[in-house]
Formats: sequence, C-alpha cells, structure tokens
Amino acid sequence: MTTGLQARLRQVRQHSVALVEPLQPEDFCLQGMADASPPKWHLGHTTWFFETFVLKPRLAAGAALPYVPAEKAWGYLFNSYYDAVGARHPRPERGLLSRPSIEAVLAWRQRVDVALEQLLSGEAGPLSQPDMELIELGLQHEQQHQELLLMDLLDGFGRNPLAPAYGPAPETWFAAAWRNDGGKSGGNDCGKGGGGWLEHPGGLVEIGHGGEGFHFDNEAPRHRQWLEPFAIAERLVSNADVAAFIADGGYRRPELWMSEGWAEVCGRGWQAPRYWRGEADQPLAQQEFTLAGLRPLDGEAPVRHLSWFEADAYARWAGARLPTEAEWEVMANRLPLAEGVLWQWTASPYRPYPGFRPAPGAVGEYNGKFMSSQMVLRGSCFLTPPGHARATYRNFYPPACRWMAAGLRLAKGPADPISSPAA
Amino acid sequence: MTTGLQARLRQVRQHSVALVEPLQPEDFCLQGMADASPPKWHLGHTTWFFETFVLKPRLAAGAALPYVPAEKAWGYLFNSYYDAVGARHPRPERGLLSRPSIEAVLAWRQRVDVALEQLLSGEAGPLSQPDMELIELGLQHEQQHQELLLMDLLDGFGRNPLAPAYGPAPETWFAAAWRNDGGKSGGNDCGKGGGGWLEHPGGLVEIGHGGEGFHFDNEAPRHRQWLEPFAIAERLVSNADVAAFIADGGYRRPELWMSEGWAEVCGRGWQAPRYWRGEADQPLAQQEFTLAGLRPLDGEAPVRHLSWFEADAYARWAGARLPTEAEWEVMANRLPLAEGVLWQWTASPYRPYPGFRPAPGAVGEYNGKFMSSQMVLRGSCFLTPPGHARATYRNFYPPACRWMAAGLRLAKGPADPISSPAA
Amino acid sequence: MTTGLQARLRQVRQHSVALVEPLQPEDFCLQGMADASPPKWHLGHTTWFFETFVLKPRLAAGAALPYVPAEKAWGYLFNSYYDAVGARHPRPERGLLSRPSIEAVLAWRQRVDVALEQLLSGEAGPLSQPDMELIELGLQHEQQHQELLLMDLLDGFGRNPLAPAYGPAPETWFAAAWRNDGGKSGGNDCGKGGGGWLEHPGGLVEIGHGGEGFHFDNEAPRHRQWLEPFAIAERLVSNADVAAFIADGGYRRPELWMSEGWAEVCGRGWQAPRYWRGEADQPLAQQEFTLAGLRPLDGEAPVRHLSWFEADAYARWAGARLPTEAEWEVMANRLPLAEGVLWQWTASPYRPYPGFRPAPGAVGEYNGKFMSSQMVLRGSCFLTPPGHARATYRNFYPPACRWMAAGLRLAKGPADPISSPAA
Amino acid sequence: MTTGLQARLRQVRQHSVALVEPLQPEDFCLQGMADASPPKWHLGHTTWFFETFVLKPRLAAGAALPYVPAEKAWGYLFNSYYDAVGARHPRPERGLLSRPSIEAVLAWRQRVDVALEQLLSGEAGPLSQPDMELIELGLQHEQQHQELLLMDLLDGFGRNPLAPAYGPAPETWFAAAWRNDGGKSGGNDCGKGGGGWLEHPGGLVEIGHGGEGFHFDNEAPRHRQWLEPFAIAERLVSNADVAAFIADGGYRRPELWMSEGWAEVCGRGWQAPRYWRGEADQPLAQQEFTLAGLRPLDGEAPVRHLSWFEADAYARWAGARLPTEAEWEVMANRLPLAEGVLWQWTASPYRPYPGFRPAPGAVGEYNGKFMSSQMVLRGSCFLTPPGHARATYRNFYPPACRWMAAGLRLAKGPADPISSPAA
Repeated sequence: MTTGLQARLRQVRQHSVALVEPLQPEDFCLQGMADASPPKWHLGHTTWFFETFVLKPRLAAGAALPYVPAEKAWGYLFNSYYDAVGARHPRPERGLLSRPSIEAVLAWRQRVDVALEQLLSGEAGPLSQPDMELIELGLQHEQQHQELLLMDLLDGFGRNPLAPAYGPAPETWFAAAWRNDGGKSGGNDCGKGGGGWLEHPGGLVEIGHGGEGFHFDNEAPRHRQWLEPFAIAERLVSNADVAAFIADGGYRRPELWMSEGWAEVCGRGWQAPRYWRGEADQPLAQQEFTLAGLRPLDGEAPVRHLSWFEADAYARWAGARLPTEAEWEVMANRLPLAEGVLWQWTASPYRPYPGFRPAPGAVGEYNGKFMSSQMVLRGSCFLTPPGHARATYRNFYPPACRWMAAGLRLAKGPADPISSPAA
Repeated sequence: MTTGLQARLRQVRQHSVALVEPLQPEDFCLQGMADASPPKWHLGHTTWFFETFVLKPRLAAGAALPYVPAEKAWGYLFNSYYDAVGARHPRPERGLLSRPSIEAVLAWRQRVDVALEQLLSGEAGPLSQPDMELIELGLQHEQQHQELLLMDLLDGFGRNPLAPAYGPAPETWFAAAWRNDGGKSGGNDCGKGGGGWLEHPGGLVEIGHGGEGFHFDNEAPRHRQWLEPFAIAERLVSNADVAAFIADGGYRRPELWMSEGWAEVCGRGWQAPRYWRGEADQPLAQQEFTLAGLRPLDGEAPVRHLSWFEADAYARWAGARLPTEAEWEVMANRLPLAEGVLWQWTASPYRPYPGFRPAPGAVGEYNGKFMSSQMVLRGSCFLTPPGHARATYRNFYPPACRWMAAGLRLAKGPADPISSPAA
Repeated sequence: MTTGLQARLRQVRQHSVALVEPLQPEDFCLQGMADASPPKWHLGHTTWFFETFVLKPRLAAGAALPYVPAEKAWGYLFNSYYDAVGARHPRPERGLLSRPSIEAVLAWRQRVDVALEQLLSGEAGPLSQPDMELIELGLQHEQQHQELLLMDLLDGFGRNPLAPAYGPAPETWFAAAWRNDGGKSGGNDCGKGGGGWLEHPGGLVEIGHGGEGFHFDNEAPRHRQWLEPFAIAERLVSNADVAAFIADGGYRRPELWMSEGWAEVCGRGWQAPRYWRGEADQPLAQQEFTLAGLRPLDGEAPVRHLSWFEADAYARWAGARLPTEAEWEVMANRLPLAEGVLWQWTASPYRPYPGFRPAPGAVGEYNGKFMSSQMVLRGSCFLTPPGHARATYRNFYPPACRWMAAGLRLAKGPADPISSPAA
Repeated sequence: MTTGLQARLRQVRQHSVALVEPLQPEDFCLQGMADASPPKWHLGHTTWFFETFVLKPRLAAGAALPYVPAEKAWGYLFNSYYDAVGARHPRPERGLLSRPSIEAVLAWRQRVDVALEQLLSGEAGPLSQPDMELIELGLQHEQQHQELLLMDLLDGFGRNPLAPAYGPAPETWFAAAWRNDGGKSGGNDCGKGGGGWLEHPGGLVEIGHGGEGFHFDNEAPRHRQWLEPFAIAERLVSNADVAAFIADGGYRRPELWMSEGWAEVCGRGWQAPRYWRGEADQPLAQQEFTLAGLRPLDGEAPVRHLSWFEADAYARWAGARLPTEAEWEVMANRLPLAEGVLWQWTASPYRPYPGFRPAPGAVGEYNGKFMSSQMVLRGSCFLTPPGHARATYRNFYPPACRWMAAGLRLAKGPADPISSPAA
C-alpha cells in the first residue's frame, strides 16, 4: 500500500502545481470574496496540512526526518479553520498575502514532498496505519482544494470587467462529463411524466459508507432509512429550463421561494444564475461566464452556479422537488450520478448520520463542526479531480451560495403530480 | 361545531386582552429587537388576520355583514409576512407605531369580534366548512401570538436596566408546569445510565398528524420513519447542569460547538443562557431575569432561553445528543412531553414531511416558506395557552435565537456511551 | 437675580411639561432613529442635568436640602454623553425605556423643581455665583431640549405611515415667525442682483460673544476676522426655489455636490427635502409633513429640513454660496436673522474660536468635544423657545443631517457673479 | 517651455516605473483596504489621466496623432472618481484586477508616453497653453500618486504578519529629510516656553497662491486673513513625546478627545500610532513598521502615521493646539516647513478660500468636491517626489485616517499658557 500511496502522492501533488500553470503572477493573490481563497493560499494550505498533521507530529515523536518546518508565521497564515491548532490569519485577508512569494510557497511544497516521500519510503522508520491514513486524508483534502482553487478563480475572474479566461481545459472537461452523462439535460421531458423519470418503490434502504476504502467521517456509519415511493429525473435541469422559469417571472414571484431565499433575491438583485451575463428579459440570449471566458449560453446544457434557494424555487415552479440525499444515493447505481457533471443540490440539510463519530484529534474539525445551516450536495462536478468522487460523498454549502459548480436534478413523490405548471 | 367555535372565539380573543392588563401604556410600543413585536402590534396583527382572511373575502362575496374594514393603511401596518396580501410596514419599525393608539386598536378588535360572532351566528348566511377552518386557524394563530407577546415582552424588559416586571403570573405557570412534569429536572441522573433514561428499540415508526382535529399544515402528512434504537432523558436539562458546563469551560472550548455557533459565542460574547445575570465565574450565584423580574437562579429548575447552538454544545459536552423530532414524537405518549414546561430543541432541521402540501392561498405562507436554516422545537412551554399543545406540533427557530422559552432534553444512541464527561 | 431666576425656572420647567400635553401615552417612548430621543427621555434627561450638576454637588457639600436623589440606575438611563459622569444607556435604545413610567418621570421633575426652588430661595444657604450660572445653564440646556423634543417627534411621526399630527401649534409659530421675517422668502429675486441682496464692504470685523449675558462657551471669545466684500440674501430660499432646482435635475447631477454628499444622495435615494411627500417629478405638487400633519407644500414658504449637502448643492446651482458664520453674524443687526424662522446652514465648519476655553468640569463636555466634522447653523427656528435666540449662537450638525428645522440663505462674493444659471 | 515639459514628462513618468522595481509580481495587486489602491492601479490610473484628458480630446479635435486608445473597459477600470467621465470600477475592488497584467499596463504607459512626446514635439500640431497646462497637471497628479503608491504599499504590507519590506530607500529619504529639518524633533522643549517656539505678532496676513507657477485650484486665490498673536513649535512632535502621552493614559482619557475621535479609539482599539508594534504598556520599547520593514522605534524621531484625532488629543494634553493653515503658511518662510519630513495636521477644516473657483471641465472635480469633513495637512513628506512641495500646498484627509505619512507640530496662542500638563 505504501508504494501505491507514493505514486498517488506524487500524482496529486503535481496536479496542484499543474493547475496553476495557466496563471499570470498577479492571479496568485486573487481573492474575490471572503468565502474564496487565492491560488497561492490553496497551494500553501494543502502543504501546511501535511506539515502540521503528518510531519510535525513525527518530528515531535523523534523521527529521523531531515525536515525543518517553515517559519512559525506560516502556520498562522495557512491554517484554515482548525481551532485546535491555534490562531490563524483572517480569512477575508488571504488575498493580502502578496508575500511569501509563489516561488517560496512552491519551494516549501517541494521540501514537504521530499519529506513525505522519505516517510513513505520507510527510511525514517516504519509508517503506521494511522499515519498512512493521515497522508491519504491529506491527499483527499488536496483534491478538494484543487476543485476549490478553480471555482474560486472563476469567482475572482468573474468580478473583473475584462472577463479574463483561465484557459480552455475546464470547459473541455465539462463537455466530456456531460457527454458521459448522456449528452443532454432537459427538464422538458422530466416535467411531464415521460420516460425521463426513474422510479423507486421506496421501503427500507441503506445509505452511507460501510466498506473499507477511503471516505470522510461524515459519510459513515452506513445506516437504514425508510423511503416513500419516489421518482428521480434522469437528467439535470438545463439552462433552457431555467430560462423558461425566468420568462415566467420566476425571480419575481415570492410564492415560489423560501422566505430566506426571497430576501436574497430582493437584497442582492438576483435575476438569473450567478454567471449569466446579459439582459434579464432575454434569458436565452445571454452569455455565460466560464473559466474559458465568456461563451454563448447553451440552452441544452445543464444549468450551473445557482444557489439552493434557486434550485428549490425552480423545483417548486416545475411542480416537483429536490431529491433527499438518501433518494439520490439509492439511485446512484442506476444513473451515472457520482461521476458528475455538476454537484446536485438535495432537499437534505447537512446533519450527522445516526451514530456519527468525528475523527479523533484536530482533523475531527474537518466535517463535523459544519453541520448546521448548510444543505447537502451530492455527486461531483467537472472540476472534481478524477477518482475523487463516490456515491456516498456528502458535499455541503449554505443555501445562498452560488459560486460552486452546482446544478440540480428534480425528484417527485410521494404522490406528486408529474407535471410542470406550463403543461 | 359553530357554537363551540363561538365560545372558543370569545375565550381566545378575550384572553389576548387579559394578557395586556398588567402593562403600562408605554409598554404597548416596546420592541426590543427586529425579531420581536410590540404588544399593540400583536393585538392588531391577530385582528388583521381575521379581517383579511375571513371578513374581507366574505364581504367581497356579498355577505350581509355590517362591517367596515379598517382604513387601508392599517392593512399595511399589521401585515406580518404575507407577500400575497401586499406590501407591509418594515418589521424592525413596528415599535415606532405610537399611533394608532391602543384604544383604537382595542376598538377595532371589538368591531371585528362582533362581525365574527355575527358570521358564526349564521345571521349573515350559512358558514362554509372552509370558513370555519379559517376562523379556527385564526384562533390558533392568535394563541401563538399570545405566547409571542409574552416572550417578546421579556426580551424588551430584559434590555431595560431597571429590570421591570410584567407580573407574577407567568412564573406561577412555570412552577405549575414543572410540577406536572415531575417537579425536577436533573441531568445528573441522566448522564450516568441510571433510571433517568427511557429506551426505545427503534424500528419503523409513524409520525405526523393523521387525524381529524386541527393541526398546522406542517404537521402532515403522517408518514413512516426508520429509527435506530435510542434513549431519551426523562427530565429536562437543569440550570445546575448548565452551570457545570460553564464551570468546565463550556463557553470557551470551540471543540464543543458547531463552527457557526462558535462564531456567535465569540461575536456576541455569550457566557451563559440569555437571561442569566451575574458573574460568569460563579454560574450558580447568578440571578435569572423573568417576567416576574429578577429572581435567584434555581439550580434544580430546567434551564431556559438558550440557543440551539448552546443546547447542541451542552449535549456534546454531556456525552449525549439532542433527540430528532421523530424520536421525540414517538416518546410523547410515554412522557408528559407535549404539555410542556419549555420548548425542547431537537436535532432536526425544519423541513417538509414527505408529501407535504402547503395550505392553498395566502395562508399557505404560514409555515412552508420558513423551511430553511431553522431547527425544530417540540413540546410547548409554560407561556403556551392551555389546549394549544399537541404531540405533533412543530415549532421552529433559527439556531442562534435565544429569546423564546426553549430548553433541552438529552438523547443518546445508537451505540452512544451513556456517561457524562464528569463521570 | 435670584428672584428672576426663580421665575425663569418655573417658566422653563413648566413649558417642557406643557409641550407634551398633546401626546398620547405611547408617544412618550417614540424614538425614530438613534440620533433622536423619545419625549420621556428629554423630560428625564433635563431633570438629570439639574440633579447631577446642581443638586448632588450641593448635597455632597453638606447643603441642608431635603432632596433624595433618584435611584442610581436613573443616572445611567438619563446621562446623554458626559463621559466624566460615568457610563450611560446606549443612545439607540432610549426608546426601549418603557419604564420608568411617564408618571414617575414627571414626579421626579417635581421633586427636583421643589429642591431647586428651595436652593434659589436661600433656605438651604446662600447660593454662589457659579451655582446660579449652573442653574442658568440647566435652563438653557432645557430650552435646547424643548426644541429637540419637537423635532425628534417630527422624525418619529414621519416614519409612521399614518402621518400622525402633534397638533396645530408649531405651524402657527412657523407662520408667525415667517410673517415677522417679511412674509416671503423668494430666491427668485435673490438670484438676479436685484434689491434682494444686502451688501457688506468687508474689512476687519468682530464676532463672538463679548458681553455679560448668558452664552455658551463656544460663542466666546469675541475676536476679529477679516472679511472680503460680500452680499447676503434678504430672504431664505423657498420651496419654489428648491422645486426649480429639482426640476433642473438637481438631485441627479453630481457636479453640483460635494463628493460625500453625492454618496448620500445615491445611497439614500434623496430626491427632495426630508419631509416632502409625493412624486419626485412634480416637485410643487407635493405635500409636506409637519407637526400639524400632512399639508400642501407652500411654494412661497422657506424650504426646511434639508441637509448641509443639499443646501450647498442648491447654492452652487444658484450661482451663489452659503454665508460663513462671520458674514452671517455681522449682518445680524441689519436683518431679523436671530429670531428666526429656520436655522440657517453656513459655509463654516464648527471649530473653536481663537482662544476658546471649554467650561471647567463635566459641563465642559457640553460643546467643545463636538468640534469636528460638523457644520455651523446660525439663527434659530420656529421651534426655539422665545428668548433663547442670540446673534452669536452657534448651532451645529453633521452635514448629512436633515431632521432639524434647517433652511438656508444665500451669499455671494467676493467677485461672484450675481445670477442664477437659469438667467 | 515645451522643452522643459518634455524633460519633465520623461523624468516623472520614469520615476513611477522606477518606484515599482523592488516589487514582487503579486505585490502589484495588493490593496490593503478600500481607501488604498494597488501599485498596478496607480500606474494605470496616472496613464488613464493623460489618455482621457490630453490625448483623447486632441484626437477628437482631429490631431494627427498615431495613438489608439486602450480598449473601452480600461477607461472604466482606471477612472478614480471623475463622475463627468462616466462610470467606474468600484474602489474597494481594485485589488481584484489581476488582469490586465502589469506588462500590459506598462506597455500602455509606453504608448501613452510616445504619444505625449509627439504632442510636445509639435509634430502633431502646435500645442496650446491649456494643453500644456493639462500635461503639467497630469505630471503633478502623477507625482501625487507616486507618494500614494508608497503609503498604500505600507498599508498593505502592514497587514501581512510577515511584515515584508519594500526596501531601504524610503527610510534613507526620511533620515535625510529629518536631518535637513534640524535632525531633532523634541516636544520636550516646546512644552515649556523655551527657545523652541517661534512667535508671530498676528495681524492681517496674506495666504494662498498668487503667482504664476503651477498650483492646484484649491491653493487660490491669494487672500487676506486676520491672525491673533501666536507661536509655532520649531520642531515636530517626537515619538518620545507621544510615548509620554501614552504613559499618561492618553488613549484612555475621553476628556482629551473629540467625541468623534473617542468613538474611533474605542471602536478600533487604538492604543498607539498606526504602525507601532509591541506592548501598549511599554511605549518606547516598541518597534515601528516601515517600508524598510520592522525597525526599533526612535524616540527622537518625529512621530508619524497618526490621525487628526490623535494629533488633536496630543496637542490638548500638551497644553497646546494645532496651528491653523494660515498660521502655518505665514511661518513657512521662517522654517523649512514645506520640504518636509512629514505632512502636518492643522486645525483647519478643508474648505474653499474666499473666491475659490474650481478648474473648468472634468478636472474641476480634482479638489473642490472633497471640501467637507476633511482636515488640511500642510508641508510635504519624505515620500513626496522632489520639487513637488510648495508652501501654499493644501493636502487633506478625513480626521480618522492614519495611513498617510502625517505628523504634527504644535501651536499656541492667543493667550495660551506655554506649558505641558507635566510641568
């Protein structure tokens, strides 16, 4: 297993560096908002994770590891939210860290990689199972940040009137993922009871991760849930679907919205998904801002970058609803849900499974402390690194967030009429 | 049924007026914060509800009802959140309505009562079943506001350095409710696996309202849920329990809190439940502010006025957790849970039951549009009007709210160790 | 002098009570915004001033005065901004003081009045000159609050969609003051170099209070200033003048505004003076909200309730400017400026005169600590109690404030063309 | 004159580029707060000024100038506050402009320089006097931004826990300027009436710019003012002076502060000048953050980076006051005031001189619209480019600002006792 981990370490760590190759130097400090982080910070933070949770404890335990930790201030700069580890640089000010330079951060990455490889080689003594699990956690963590890095960049570039492009690659991934998913979205069929719905009889089901492979603590334990009969749409909701919603006054009708969501619509002036550009009264004539720059909005493509509030309102307008995470998961083997085009909002608040136990120690802060006021998203998205997705994966964001690559899939039942209001 | 409704109408409407008798004139406009409303507004709003949803539609339908609606501006002043009805006075500015005077509002109440009684008498034509249901909804709505009126007053009085008292009655009700509940709380027993826990084997259960009597739309439909084995504490957590939590650094240890809750603790300087008064380092030497004024804190009494974040952190510290609303409800016949001393926070976010349908028309805004970012409380409290409680009742508040009469009851399982950290 | 002071004490203190007679009970706690105070607070604070600065020091010095101070918490509630006296109730929460009741506050007033009269009678020992000066200061202070009470009420009533009326008296005072001032305003003449301008040759002048009578510390010392030749308008700017400004796009043209003022216009959506009610595109068809309720806007009447930013922008549009306070003061003997219809914004920031010394002790906080970021207003207004005005009086408010009874008078020179842009 | 202007153009424009040589790439987007701008933006904005106000009007007028303006969006990005020119990128988001790249901005600078040189050479037709004046204004404007660029960098670097250094040069300039100024500061002497005070008999004086050379519109017209006798300190207040103020509780005594300033002290937790680093209870043991990094605090050196509120409070504590701008200016020929070590806060709000006329056209927005709620600073500072200072120069900032290189010089009189409270 160590050998496999060595190869994987190399692959994952190099991928992060490859991702920033298209950037210009000033992009490394770009932080569009408090919720997002600059590329340099992502590169530093993922390295800090290994130094803090893997290397330093082994050094403290006397390992013969020729590694000298970064100066103390870096620990302050690159901690994200681990209270047990100590104080940290304020999140909204990560974009102010013009220093350390990107060269210094990349050099740090290399030193940490060398030390990790030495660890994995066994030169510094045998590696325990918990240590290997921590390294694996660090790699999974880094893969999450690879996705974050790109979606944060999209947010930052989206605030620049020049509409800069990162490069063509992500849109290529999107097209490929969409093709794998059937090449179409199309709520049109799904609203009308046609072949677009996949039915499930309900009953007692099991969800959650119960096996051996890697999973985050929040995916366990595997447990039973009772489901009523339901159906789930085969396809994601499309841009054309949402354009119809807009044309029907979707963003102007409070009865379609959660009260809290309506306050967002009014307070922020939402008139369309986050990255649509153009006139609100001609929804389909719009452009869409992507990491490849401004592109014509493709009506057939799955809609992306909308909040849970918008997803929920759209579903209500369509005479349907969002699936719960249990419904989603039990259908995951019948649809290519997990290797996904877009994260899919569910109807489920993010809460612990029955019997949930956070991981011990500081990494126990990884997931458990966020289990309030957030909604679960399932699947993965075109920005998710290959191999990182799982059917039991639980992603989560506050319901007003729009900058992640989220879309939606409708569900219905029990006893829902299968029809859209337009029908 | 009409006759019963007539008596009930008289009783409920008179109770609202009786509740404000101890007030001084200036108290009628007291609004301590945006979330609370002044007594005069509660009296006006509950009247507006009947005028808007019962009287006006019947007048519009040609009923021979000698009722002249209040001037149009009053409809603007006393609408709470019904978007379908039209614009409304901003909630944070309800306290600025020194006019209309309380006399004018009380006179309006009487005119509406007369009209409602005429309706119920059949003089203005036969009353339809939906109309009777709307009147019943209006009465249930008014009972909710009777409780709100008192808890909002507590909030407002609590901001006055003179610590004014409303009167002795509510503390009498509290004492009586607590006595009915067994006369003790006592997390002490409950933390140690003794007789303080009531066990349930789990399995497929049914919750929600399925019968004929009045219930809010959010209590239906009755449906199945699967539960793992669990236990629920016989008693509410006490002031002494929370004092032990405080003495053990409960408000200074981030690992016990949701991340969002910890931000509240730090940002608002929380050191104890909302109405404790005194020195944080001597938790049990404190006083408690109540509607009867400042009183010594009774260690045995159930703790009240804490947020979901505090309840959740306390439970984690105690090695337990909050019950889900399904767990709570299936135990309600084995404990006097519903006629309660205090609302009890659950582990459940407020979301629709499978197959939920909001009531049609504007009253459909009553419950459904608040189903995001709130947590369910179950039971009722000493301020709840007699007869208003039900085992299926779903109350809900955002997790940071502390001004309602909320306490907590612990649960454990599946597979939870039954012990407190002190044990 | 003591006898005169006794009569004056009685007159001023009774006038405060007379002013609140038209109020309904709930009005006593009405606080429309943080900058304003409720009527009850004004009555309490002016009483607190006498207790704190007159009675308590004499009691501490052993005076045989049968007065028992109010309970300690009242000192906290009714302190306004005197840091030297101690902590205080937060200003934005004065409206939450439904208790003490207005009856209790009025009873306190009477007890303080009795004690003050005893002091003035000499029964409790001879009264020193500084004591008499403090009592006089307290009376002047109370007269300021009499004006504040009414303008704060206007602010509070102005936020009520019912547009309540205090009563007819203030508008009667306004009409009388305006008649005394010539019965017309009329920027029309003033924009064109006609007889509407009063000229001054400039030169070395003296301003400030140099005599014996009462004056606030900020009016002294009398000192010299050099003035260039200038002219001042005989009349105040009228509603019709501002209507013409509005019709000419005055609130939409940034070039007419201070940068800071333009931010207010955009941020707050200003389209007209504070209390104009109606359609922005028909300035003169509007109504005006007053203490006598909504009334037709009189184009001839002086415009009131606009900010310094609006006054400054109007003057720029009119090809003129605001007078400096020195220019205003040296003209005060040639025009009935001091007994004024409206406070008049000047071009002068509020700063100390050369050689200014604050009064010693806590009352030294009265004026001096506000000498930054405020503009001087001169004259007085129809709400100012008779006898309170002086040509040397310096009123001051931040430039964005609009709730006081402020108007404006134009000036020009040196070398200003006397013409409006319309000419 | 054209030839002189050509040489000057080259010198000034090259100096801007030279100033950014020590920067690392990510520094170009560093914006520490909304009031500051990133280096790249300064380079772009000063170029935009020439394109917008010099090149484009001449192109529009048909000049044979082989210059193609930057794409339209750049005009939006690099406009600072000229409403007449059009909309602009929000100031707080200048740091988000990772694109255009610094290379693209520098290339634009070169193209604009070539075009300007062609203009000045006469190749594109004779240059009018107004055109030459606009170019001179552009150069003066660029010199202002050279200073801003460095003080904004200091602000940004000051927010980085690594305390990065720009380079040694600015501290060299500071030392040189201080040496020229006499090599010492020293409020010690100045508090006691010794030789440290320079007296002026008062009388009718003239201030403002009346000559031919370049000056900003706000320095004119030259006009008379009457001054009472006064004295001005020969030296700037030192770090040791402020340390004594701190040790005497200066930041904890409200009686020393303007009310508005005290709110800043409490709200922001001010305990020392902006860039002091260390323990508040050992003022002189602190370090000072500079563009050369952290350095020991030199007690003898003039204090820098404090707000007007702090300067005003210090002066009050020292038994003195700040000089008015007229007092400062009439002493400028007797002290090396203008070529200054630090900008010096005055007692004067920033208002127009009698007879002030803004420059015509969009550049009229340069100074005039900021004449509210700001205080005048006089002199110049070690970051001011050589040749840019003038005795009539009026700098201005809001009284709470601390990031500019400001210090203070005491004044006294008329009739002030010359003594510090410690004496």
